[in-house]
Amino acid sequence: MPATPAPQTDPIRAAIVGPTGFTGVHLVELLHRHPAAKLTYLASHRDELPDLRDEFPRLTGKLDDETAQCRPIDAGAIAEHADVAFLALPHTAAMAYVPPLLDAGVRVVDLSADYRLNDAQRYERVYHTPHLDAANLPSAVYGLPELFRDDLPGATLVANPGCYPTAAAIGVAPFLTHALVKPEPIVINASSGTSGAGRSAKPATHFISVNEAYGPYGTIGGHRHQPEIAQTLCRVAGKSDGQIDPLFVPHLLPTDVGILETIYLEPADEQVTQDELFEALLDAYADEPFVRVREAGDALPNTKHVAGTNFVDVTVRRVTTGAEGRPTVVVFVAEDNLIKGASGQAIQNMNAVFELDETLGLL
Amino acid sequence: MPATPAPQTDPIRAAIVGPTGFTGVHLVELLHRHPAAKLTYLASHRDELPDLRDEFPRLTGKLDDETAQCRPIDAGAIAEHADVAFLALPHTAAMAYVPPLLDAGVRVVDLSADYRLNDAQRYERVYHTPHLDAANLPSAVYGLPELFRDDLPGATLVANPGCYPTAAAIGVAPFLTHALVKPEPIVINASSGTSGAGRSAKPATHFISVNEAYGPYGTIGGHRHQPEIAQTLCRVAGKSDGQIDPLFVPHLLPTDVGILETIYLEPADEQVTQDELFEALLDAYADEPFVRVREAGDALPNTKHVAGTNFVDVTVRRVTTGAEGRPTVVVFVAEDNLIKGASGQAIQNMNAVFELDETLGLL
Amino acid sequence: MPATPAPQTDPIRAAIVGPTGFTGVHLVELLHRHPAAKLTYLASHRDELPDLRDEFPRLTGKLDDETAQCRPIDAGAIAEHADVAFLALPHTAAMAYVPPLLDAGVRVVDLSADYRLNDAQRYERVYHTPHLDAANLPSAVYGLPELFRDDLPGATLVANPGCYPTAAAIGVAPFLTHALVKPEPIVINASSGTSGAGRSAKPATHFISVNEAYGPYGTIGGHRHQPEIAQTLCRVAGKSDGQIDPLFVPHLLPTDVGILETIYLEPADEQVTQDELFEALLDAYADEPFVRVREAGDALPNTKHVAGTNFVDVTVRRVTTGAEGRPTVVVFVAEDNLIKGASGQAIQNMNAVFELDETLGLL
Amino acid sequence: MPATPAPQTDPIRAAIVGPTGFTGVHLVELLHRHPAAKLTYLASHRDELPDLRDEFPRLTGKLDDETAQCRPIDAGAIAEHADVAFLALPHTAAMAYVPPLLDAGVRVVDLSADYRLNDAQRYERVYHTPHLDAANLPSAVYGLPELFRDDLPGATLVANPGCYPTAAAIGVAPFLTHALVKPEPIVINASSGTSGAGRSAKPATHFISVNEAYGPYGTIGGHRHQPEIAQTLCRVAGKSDGQIDPLFVPHLLPTDVGILETIYLEPADEQVTQDELFEALLDAYADEPFVRVREAGDALPNTKHVAGTNFVDVTVRRVTTGAEGRPTVVVFVAEDNLIKGASGQAIQNMNAVFELDETLGLL
Repeated sequence: MPATPAPQTDPIRAAIVGPTGFTGVHLVELLHRHPAAKLTYLASHRDELPDLRDEFPRLTGKLDDETAQCRPIDAGAIAEHADVAFLALPHTAAMAYVPPLLDAGVRVVDLSADYRLNDAQRYERVYHTPHLDAANLPSAVYGLPELFRDDLPGATLVANPGCYPTAAAIGVAPFLTHALVKPEPIVINASSGTSGAGRSAKPATHFISVNEAYGPYGTIGGHRHQPEIAQTLCRVAGKSDGQIDPLFVPHLLPTDVGILETIYLEPADEQVTQDELFEALLDAYADEPFVRVREAGDALPNTKHVAGTNFVDVTVRRVTTGAEGRPTVVVFVAEDNLIKGASGQAIQNMNAVFELDETLGLL
Repeated sequence: MPATPAPQTDPIRAAIVGPTGFTGVHLVELLHRHPAAKLTYLASHRDELPDLRDEFPRLTGKLDDETAQCRPIDAGAIAEHADVAFLALPHTAAMAYVPPLLDAGVRVVDLSADYRLNDAQRYERVYHTPHLDAANLPSAVYGLPELFRDDLPGATLVANPGCYPTAAAIGVAPFLTHALVKPEPIVINASSGTSGAGRSAKPATHFISVNEAYGPYGTIGGHRHQPEIAQTLCRVAGKSDGQIDPLFVPHLLPTDVGILETIYLEPADEQVTQDELFEALLDAYADEPFVRVREAGDALPNTKHVAGTNFVDVTVRRVTTGAEGRPTVVVFVAEDNLIKGASGQAIQNMNAVFELDETLGLL
Repeated sequence: MPATPAPQTDPIRAAIVGPTGFTGVHLVELLHRHPAAKLTYLASHRDELPDLRDEFPRLTGKLDDETAQCRPIDAGAIAEHADVAFLALPHTAAMAYVPPLLDAGVRVVDLSADYRLNDAQRYERVYHTPHLDAANLPSAVYGLPELFRDDLPGATLVANPGCYPTAAAIGVAPFLTHALVKPEPIVINASSGTSGAGRSAKPATHFISVNEAYGPYGTIGGHRHQPEIAQTLCRVAGKSDGQIDPLFVPHLLPTDVGILETIYLEPADEQVTQDELFEALLDAYADEPFVRVREAGDALPNTKHVAGTNFVDVTVRRVTTGAEGRPTVVVFVAEDNLIKGASGQAIQNMNAVFELDETLGLL
Repeated sequence: MPATPAPQTDPIRAAIVGPTGFTGVHLVELLHRHPAAKLTYLASHRDELPDLRDEFPRLTGKLDDETAQCRPIDAGAIAEHADVAFLALPHTAAMAYVPPLLDAGVRVVDLSADYRLNDAQRYERVYHTPHLDAANLPSAVYGLPELFRDDLPGATLVANPGCYPTAAAIGVAPFLTHALVKPEPIVINASSGTSGAGRSAKPATHFISVNEAYGPYGTIGGHRHQPEIAQTLCRVAGKSDGQIDPLFVPHLLPTDVGILETIYLEPADEQVTQDELFEALLDAYADEPFVRVREAGDALPNTKHVAGTNFVDVTVRRVTTGAEGRPTVVVFVAEDNLIKGASGQAIQNMNAVFELDETLGLL
């Protein structure tokens, strides 16, 4: 549960670097309605610096002329205007901007994957490019408050988790920490709304490709979010890296937003009961403002219940098959991929870094 | 591969009993374009017998006044007009109509679940009502031509498979028959378009409930299609009933049609290669007109590729996880739940029963 | 432009009567995030009083047990807990509850149509039932702040405008008040998302009926929102009732929310320029926080730009056809039918009634 | 009504030039199921000639290796293999290929706009490029069989109408020819599914731009299909070009396919009755196999009723407004923009050119 917020006199001044993607515009909207933060600087790497309202007509009437105008990515200028910078840049592009921002005294919440993996070699294997800022990697805090809250207050660099890894970690962690399931096999069958594929126009994101369509995508078994999931599960289970390595299979949904993960686990002990599984969930999350444990009689998790919110819905079932009643633990987790899976969690992390109530601006 | 069709002089005369549901209207459209069959009789159990064009405005211009007018369900009258009757009635409602139709000399293709389970006790456990026609159960043929083609020519009663079971059986059978995977665990993560939920208006099928939504539904581990899948897999693997019992978890898609199943299997031998897995698929289906094996470089199965067709798309991947490279076999299967999963397969079965080319009217 | 808000010490206490529909749940969410109001009472006319979180799983985590529990519709009890009651009941059901609430000293914002028409006879013609509370009709204020702001401060009974009429009035009023267009013909071609059809499950709202579908609905020329539009246009134009009577044709969109109206008007003078038309819009709305005039180079109004917001987007074009260049004035208006078209406007009205900044809780 | 088909011994051999767009793939599917035609040649202008099954996975299993392989656009080679060529190329690209194909003796059905306007100057004004083949313009037949059937038998060059113009012409023509409406004003409020925007990936066709969105697009009053509509209406009304010039306003629908036009007309005589309007429709279309006149008690036209078919659904209402009962004629027309609005009509035209039953392969 978040600590009682320290009294805050001035609002937190926030910059967004790379606001023209989907996570950027969500950050703008969330900051706009935040009672203790204020958007002060939009920084774009485009040659022609846009007015963000031209990019996103829905922002007109929320942003004034000065705020809406993107400015260059200049660490010094950002430091003058902002206490914290959200980096909403593509993977591999963000890490170039972190050192100058940190040096200028700006706290950074990085929504890219650049500081999520704690090992530069692994980063290079996954992203096929050397890490440009290995020096700051050890100090980066993985910003998943429900699991690693204590790391956040006062942090200078937060690696904001990926959308799929957030749902997976929240869904699996309680069963690992309570030793109710085996560390393998873990099968994560995941589906994401199309905003997860980014804003650039590609054949795969053409309306006709996505509408009335559903199927797997990418290299099966090779999604780049999988190592992040593995790393987090190892950490919560107290294992060394590589000892837990889930199978992760993503699919594309004909929706704007939403992630639903159906996770198949093997119980550590065949006698585990469904009640014990729920107890583990409730023990982990009963006091969490953003995790809703759906109990046996409740509605099952669904992307629609969480769309537009920072909630994660989670439930669990013990199911048996076969004559001998072989048990499987089935976990369902739903979140909004752009809110709890990205921009909402980034705001939650900002709140935690500045020791505010984590729910500020998010409920 | 289907046998060469026998020369056919007169078209097959077909009746549809219960045409006001989604499978009914698809049967109408498929029969309308069939070169060797003719819709002759629509039979409804409604008190007020509808003109089917009022139920489905899209049928206007295809059906003439006489054909469009529903008549009572009268076995004698149907026998006068039809060689075969498609029963498109709800589960548990169909079995009352089968004995009189068979007695009157009409062949029956039953799209309900009433004759799919070969054991009346199991039927009663799943459908919570006694089977009313156990006498005809042994003679019912399970109409999945790709697996059990030889049963079809001349059959008098065909149990048309369920939509989920069709995809599951086609996706798993080759690996069981080639002994490449273990009989357990089998995890079937399935998603279906909303037409699978039927035509009646319920809160769960309200547009606002389904649109921009995705999640699991029903009793997890208790879907009534699961025993049908189990029975078929036991049969193809040469096991007695109950020895194979997959875990089946369905989800609802915000689309009109389409089923996509992502199936997780364990290899019988860790050394099995992806090539061997593909060989099993090709051995089973290379000559099948309606099963498209998507090879490694092809597009992955997607509901959109099969929508409106009688095709099933299937592919397989061998994926490893963990330091020791623990292998999992991942199968993807896509079909149109109303075509190959229902009405298209029913037409394919009719073709097979009457010893016509199975593809007639379906390509 | 809203007046500077009076200093507010205690939050406004708000009740919702009939919260189980789509407008009800939106009121809950808007009140939940309102900085100067507080939801205190949910009243339902159901026999079995629901916990609203069971009806709308998305509300879990926002409402506590006490707030979520619906209570009976009891004017005295509501008056104890609330300063204002939002009636989110069906048309013709709301008017029975207004007199006791007003008598008990509760201000009322009625989201139904029951107090929108200022003439009980006309109400009866449109809704086919006598008006049960003609006594309060004259004191009801039509709550469209952009046009009739002065009526709101201190009002005891606000008739919250319909979704279609809000868009139509905002789109047409400036041209009538500036005498730039003729009072007839006015053609309003309107399209609405499916939430406008209500939450009850009907064949017409089945997912399969709406998805991938678009067309007109209802009795063409006889939609019951038309008289409300006519009344408002007469009022802004200073005409007596019946002198302006637009043609209104609604269509159903395969979307959750959104209204888009394309309005065809005839210029009063053929020489009117597009600039003059924009000047009329800007004169009316440049200072309005919730009306965004989209100028010639801006994005055209689209339901997506306003979805989830209290904004109305509006633009205008002067288009000529024929050899002689016959001019037509084409207006496009977009809003979220459940926000500016219902619950958001209701909150805006509450703000105005209590002399708060109209934008509180809405930006 | 189509003439009785002449006996046909050999199937018509058909080529498609430019099959990689949406109209191309529909032509492939329609030819595949056509009983009297055969796809023999796919010609692409791409440097790397694709196998069409790689472009459209849904075609696998329908096309064999030889047919699926695109070949260069070589008029001589096409003439060797084909009796007719369908040009499914972009506007302004098609006209370069027509002369060599005609010279080689191949009949041409051009799905682009290049031969629809009968005046090269007007073409240049609309498409901003000179017409390259003015010589063949006079001999091009405008292929809208319901209005201009007599031009088709034996034609060598058919200009296949645009999607919007087809619906508009079918909806308006009967009232002009029966002199029931004035030639102006004519307001066509049109909406189209996203396939109408073509297959190339642009920000405007990104799933996130289109899904849950609805609004106008393009230059209001300046859509390039408008002159085609005007030309057709002038022709059916016996007016010289320019005398009828409708106002045409298109909107984009969040659906794959479908066009719905709501058309507002002024009656020639205020006394015209709704019955007279229906008589005009029935007089024009009662015997047309692809036009379904929806009478007063029938379902209103909806894109879903026509999706995937070559039907056009049309109905009419006489609506009055104002104290004096000012009448307006409101027409609704629905079609599938890719079938009756493009590829289906092209097949219908082919049937007519070769004097076959127009419905062959289309019902």
